[in-house]
This record gives sequence, structure tokens and C-alpha cells, in this order.
Amino acid sequence: MVIADFQVARTPKIYFGAGKFRELPNIVTLMGQNVLLVTGTNSLQTFGKLATLIQAFREMQLEYVSCSVSGEPTPEFIDDTVATYKTRQIDVVVAIGGGSVIDAGKAISAMLTADDSVVNYLEGVSVKNHDGLKVPFIAVPTTAGTGSEATKNAVLSRIGSDGFKSSLRHENFVPNIALVDPELALTCPPAITAACGMDALVQLLEAYVSTQASPFTDALAWSGIEHLQQSLIPVCTTRSQQIEARTDMAYAALMSGIVLSNAGLGIVHGLAGPIGGLFHIPHGVVCGTLIGAATKVNIDYLKKEGIDHIALKKYAAIGRLISGEEGTDIEAGCQLLLTKLESWIDKLQLPRLSVFGIRRSDVSEIVKRSAIKNNPARPAITDINQILLERL
Amino acid sequence: MVIADFQVARTPKIYFGAGKFRELPNIVTLMGQNVLLVTGTNSLQTFGKLATLIQAFREMQLEYVSCSVSGEPTPEFIDDTVATYKTRQIDVVVAIGGGSVIDAGKAISAMLTADDSVVNYLEGVSVKNHDGLKVPFIAVPTTAGTGSEATKNAVLSRIGSDGFKSSLRHENFVPNIALVDPELALTCPPAITAACGMDALVQLLEAYVSTQASPFTDALAWSGIEHLQQSLIPVCTTRSQQIEARTDMAYAALMSGIVLSNAGLGIVHGLAGPIGGLFHIPHGVVCGTLIGAATKVNIDYLKKEGIDHIALKKYAAIGRLISGEEGTDIEAGCQLLLTKLESWIDKLQLPRLSVFGIRRSDVSEIVKRSAIKNNPARPAITDINQILLERL
Repeated sequence: MVIADFQVARTPKIYFGAGKFRELPNIVTLMGQNVLLVTGTNSLQTFGKLATLIQAFREMQLEYVSCSVSGEPTPEFIDDTVATYKTRQIDVVVAIGGGSVIDAGKAISAMLTADDSVVNYLEGVSVKNHDGLKVPFIAVPTTAGTGSEATKNAVLSRIGSDGFKSSLRHENFVPNIALVDPELALTCPPAITAACGMDALVQLLEAYVSTQASPFTDALAWSGIEHLQQSLIPVCTTRSQQIEARTDMAYAALMSGIVLSNAGLGIVHGLAGPIGGLFHIPHGVVCGTLIGAATKVNIDYLKKEGIDHIALKKYAAIGRLISGEEGTDIEAGCQLLLTKLESWIDKLQLPRLSVFGIRRSDVSEIVKRSAIKNNPARPAITDINQILLERL
Repeated sequence: MVIADFQVARTPKIYFGAGKFRELPNIVTLMGQNVLLVTGTNSLQTFGKLATLIQAFREMQLEYVSCSVSGEPTPEFIDDTVATYKTRQIDVVVAIGGGSVIDAGKAISAMLTADDSVVNYLEGVSVKNHDGLKVPFIAVPTTAGTGSEATKNAVLSRIGSDGFKSSLRHENFVPNIALVDPELALTCPPAITAACGMDALVQLLEAYVSTQASPFTDALAWSGIEHLQQSLIPVCTTRSQQIEARTDMAYAALMSGIVLSNAGLGIVHGLAGPIGGLFHIPHGVVCGTLIGAATKVNIDYLKKEGIDHIALKKYAAIGRLISGEEGTDIEAGCQLLLTKLESWIDKLQLPRLSVFGIRRSDVSEIVKRSAIKNNPARPAITDINQILLERL
């Protein structure tokens, strides 16, 4: 297997491990005096972690201001926050929360150096290129899912018929630091843990079979899936309070961010974009509910190109890994993968699309707006429709 | 297997692939106008690549100055070069060459911002801490070995009885950009290709079994060894002109740099330091000639702690990978590794230490100055002596 050309963006400096959150004040101090703290309406506050952090900031005589993100961040929220804090000479932005909070922090850190609206820089919405200058940014995820702590884009959303989910993107927007403390997810409820876990899984799987995959992203995607497969179901059921399972999931999510940034994604994410723009539905749920049907379509198409297609070999290898069954051929390995994906979707009770108001009559509009991205196969429109119809 | 705490430094931005060298002028332009080019007494010039690069610099109206490194860089060379160019407001340092050249460029880029001698910042030689500020640095390796294009340290040497090999080290010294073009190594002669290849192998293997290894470094070390094992012998013999083999080796070397930076190294590198300080002997030759004997000692020690020691499992997994034999137990897997290492040392005709003037009477002094680093076992002095005696 010849190695094709590839590029890798700088990864964040990573601090990984249970209890690392306690090191945050010392890390922040190294980066400056004026802190903008971005949080969600999360449970950190309940558990006093945020209070402890702020107490430490005070003791270290750091100046801080804070803002709170509710739901997925909108361009208006970013613009308003930037307008409020622009004159304060912020030295470092610290975002503590789920993917939405980290995306908000990432966009704020990027826009504190610009003079106009973030809308002007959103892919597919407007045309300006950001110069990449930003205020240093620390990402502290409290869920194990989006991997935003390691990606170069921030997803902003506007919901409705003119809605979008669109990215502010630049290689320099990869967080300077990703502080990943699996303890922070211990209180994450099962349904959210499941949706986030499926998001990470889909990112790892789509990047692994992506047309832009490299040996570097393959190695990290494989490693992420290896850890995720042993903890995805336990962390949502019997082992939600076990730090080892939370640690596996936090690691898998972090890897998913690195690999999606550098290998791209596939058809599930190509559908998740327009679905998220048109409907109120958690991103992880879309990804998780569609991955089985989408992988089946991909495998069917790839088989037409020959059973020794590299993406089929990869699907089969993942099938063997996650089922624990060795030595099967490619055909059987792919089947192991499909069976296991269906079983996970089932066990995690991932809701169908119709639960969120998506109807048969919406399918063609969603598919019209969808993108194929770096998907290994090129399915016909009717087959893409079918992916959605199966999960209505 | 529970994931223990770990840290990862920022990787460089990586441009990887045959022909990428042609993109260098465009990449440099993005970083500024004033370039300091660091090269070796290498063959690039012969092949006109350097002339083409300089022509492109001129056409793009970049200002450039250059310096040439011969042999391993000394502190005096770094200080003199910095003194010469300090007033020129260099925007970017570009080093094109083997490990010594890249280490020189890395040290120069770091010292252009300081006002005193680099000696003051060398580990184990002096005590000052560098603040990490540097001029942006692009590393372009022309050999596949040290992985310096992805590490945070520059090794400087003084040879003799008061000699040392010591590192200038800071996380910020990881090159901003690693441009890895396997074409540049096509003219590298077999003996140098072999020594560099063994250096990469030892770095990958020592980092893989290091006490500081993480799933992140494990994944990349494995991936590096996977590619190295299929090309190490061919690239030194029948396939030296094949870009696929050079590409495998370039990738393995790059991975070795990332993993050694983040997982550390073992006893072979702990011995290579003092040997390189006391004698004129290529670093890759020391590593390659010692890895068989050192791995045997490690395995013997680890077995005393129990055959299911994680490092033994890892050695065995690598043994299976590089021998292509599946399904053996840990004991047999370790033996496959030792056999293959001996076979490679033999096929590549790695010289013994005595060829470079090292005598039996030097052994105790070398071992006295050696370090155990993050070696998975803690062998007694007599057994460390034995590693050297076997390869005298």
C-alpha cells in the first residue's frame, strides 16, 4: 500500500487524564491575565467545579469575564459576545462545555481580532477568508463526542427554512490547548452520552474510510475505535460512573476530532449538515441514527467496484475489531460491522428522524442540500433518499 | 487496559509526499520576507534542487541568507551563526538536510531571540530555562532517520573527554512546519540510509515500550513500524531508487519524531548519548548496532516480572508484525522480534563499536554516564555493560 500525499494540521497541546481540570488555572496563567470564560448551561456549576475554578482565578489574581451559551451557537451570539468584550484586551479564551460551547469559544477567540460579523466568514454562507489571527484558545470538553477540542472549525447554526449549519474554519483555529478530563463527563446523562458517543464513532469511522485518509489518520482513527468499542455501551448503561469507561470515550472523541480535521468525513455528515439546519435535532442523534443505513449503502456501492476495494477492507477490519471475531473474509467482516452498528443503534435506543418532525416529504429537500464530502462511494440520489427513509 | 494520564505537544503542520519540495517557496512566503536557509554539505546542490529553490526565492523577491553545517552542530556554530544574522530581522528559518542540519536550524531559530550562548540552555550542561520564544522554523529532512522535523529538541555536540551530546529543548521548538518529501532521500547512499533507518526503528520501538507511552503514541509508533518493516531492507538494497520505499521510510521517521517527543526513549538512547559525546560515531549506527542486545536484556528482565507484562506483550506484537507470523504466544513473539532485529543488523552490516575505536576499557565510563530514560526494564550495571560488550 503506497502512502499518498497528505497534510496534517498542528494538533493542540493535549493534557489528558482524570483530574486534569485542576491544572487549568496554572495553564491559563501561563497565557495571560485577562480571561474570557465561555460555559454552557451545564452541570459543572452544580458540582462546584466552576466555583472552584473561579476561586483559583481570583487567588491567582487573574481578571476574568464570562458568558454562557445555551443550545447551538448562532452568529448573533458570537457577534454580541465579541462586541461586549472586544475592548477588554482578552489574553485567552477558555471554553468549558459540550461541542456547542467549545465551538462558541473557538468562534469568539477568532472574531475578537476581526471588525465585522462572523457571518461574513461562514463557509457556503459568505465568501470572506479569515486571516487566522485569533486570541489563544483553551478547549475543555465536558462531553465525549464532537472532538471540537481538536478541530479547526466552529459550527454555527441558524434554524429554519433559510437555516444553515455552517463552519468558521482555519487551521489556526485548532485550539492551542485541549484539556481533556474524563471526570467532567461523569454526570452526563445516558441519552446525551449515547448521542455524543455515536457522533465520535461516526467521525472516526467516516474519517477512517475517507478518500482523504492517511496512515497518520488511520492509526489514530483505529486507536479511537479500539477504545470506543469497548466502552460505548457500558458507558451508557452499567458503567456510566466508571472513570475507565469515561476515559475511553474521552480519548475516542479527541481522536475523532484529530482525524476528521485531517481526513474529512462522509455521507452521514453530509446529511447531518442540512438536517441540523432545517430541524431541531441533536447532531449526535442524526449521525447515530443514520450510520447503519449509510454504511450499508456505502458497502453495497463499493462491492460493485470489487471486493478488494481499500474502503471495504477497512470496513471489514473495523467489523472484526468491534465484534472481536478474527480471520473472517472481507464480505463477512463488512457484515460483522453492519450487524454491530445495528445492535448499537438498537441498544442505545437512538430515536428515528420522525421523532423530530422530519417527514417523508422533507427527504428530497434534505438530500438536495446534502454533500457527499469525502465519502468512499458515490451513491445515486435515490439511494441517499433511502438512507433517510429507512430511519424516518 | 486503562488509559493513563498523558500529554502531547503540538505536532508540526505536516506537508508529506513526493514532490512537496516544490511547494516550499510558496509556504515560506506566507511566513515572511527574510529567510535564513540552513543546509548541510549535502547532495541537494548537486541535483540542482537548491539552485531551483533559490531561483524561486529570487522570483518571489524573498531576501535570503544561508549557512552550511558540516557534521554534528556544536554550540560554537550556533552562537556564531546567530551573531552573524541577529541584526537581519529573520522572519523564518528553513533547514534542509539530515538530522544535524535540522537540529542546527532548530537551535538557531531558538537562539535568534536570546542574547547569550546556547550553552547556557543545554540540558545537563547548564541550568537556564529558555522561554520558548523563537523565529518560525520549517524543517525539510533529506534523510529518513532522526525525526527531528517533529521533535522539540535540538542535539548539540562537543566531542572529547569533556565532550557531550546535549539537548536544547522546549515544546515550542517543535518545528512550525515539517515538509517531508521522500524524493529528497533518493540519492542517500546505502550505509547512511541503513543507519538513519535503524535510528527511526529504535526510536519507534523504544517509544512504543516506553513507560511514558500513551494510546496516541502507541498508534503512531505501530503505524511507523508497519511501514518501516516492509521497506527497511529493500530501501538499503534493491529498492533504493523506488519512491514507495523511500516514502515508507520518510513516514516512519516522521512518526518516530512525534512518538519520541511524547513518549520518550529507552536504554539504547540512554547509551547513545555518552557514546556520541565521547567518540566520533554516527548516531544511527550506535542505535542500530545496540538494539538487538539491548532488547534481549530488556526482555529477560521483564520476564522476571511476569510474562504478561505490558511491555512484553508489546514486544511480542511487534515481533509478530515484523515477522509476518500470526498467533504466536508472548514468549514466541518476543523471540520473533529478537530474531528479526538480529537479521536486520546482519543484513545491513551495521558496524561494531570497536570499528570506531571503542575498547573494552571504555565500557564502564560509557555506562557510568548513561541514562535509563523511560526504559521498561531496570537492568543492573553489569547487564548494561554486557549490551556494549556484545557489540564491541
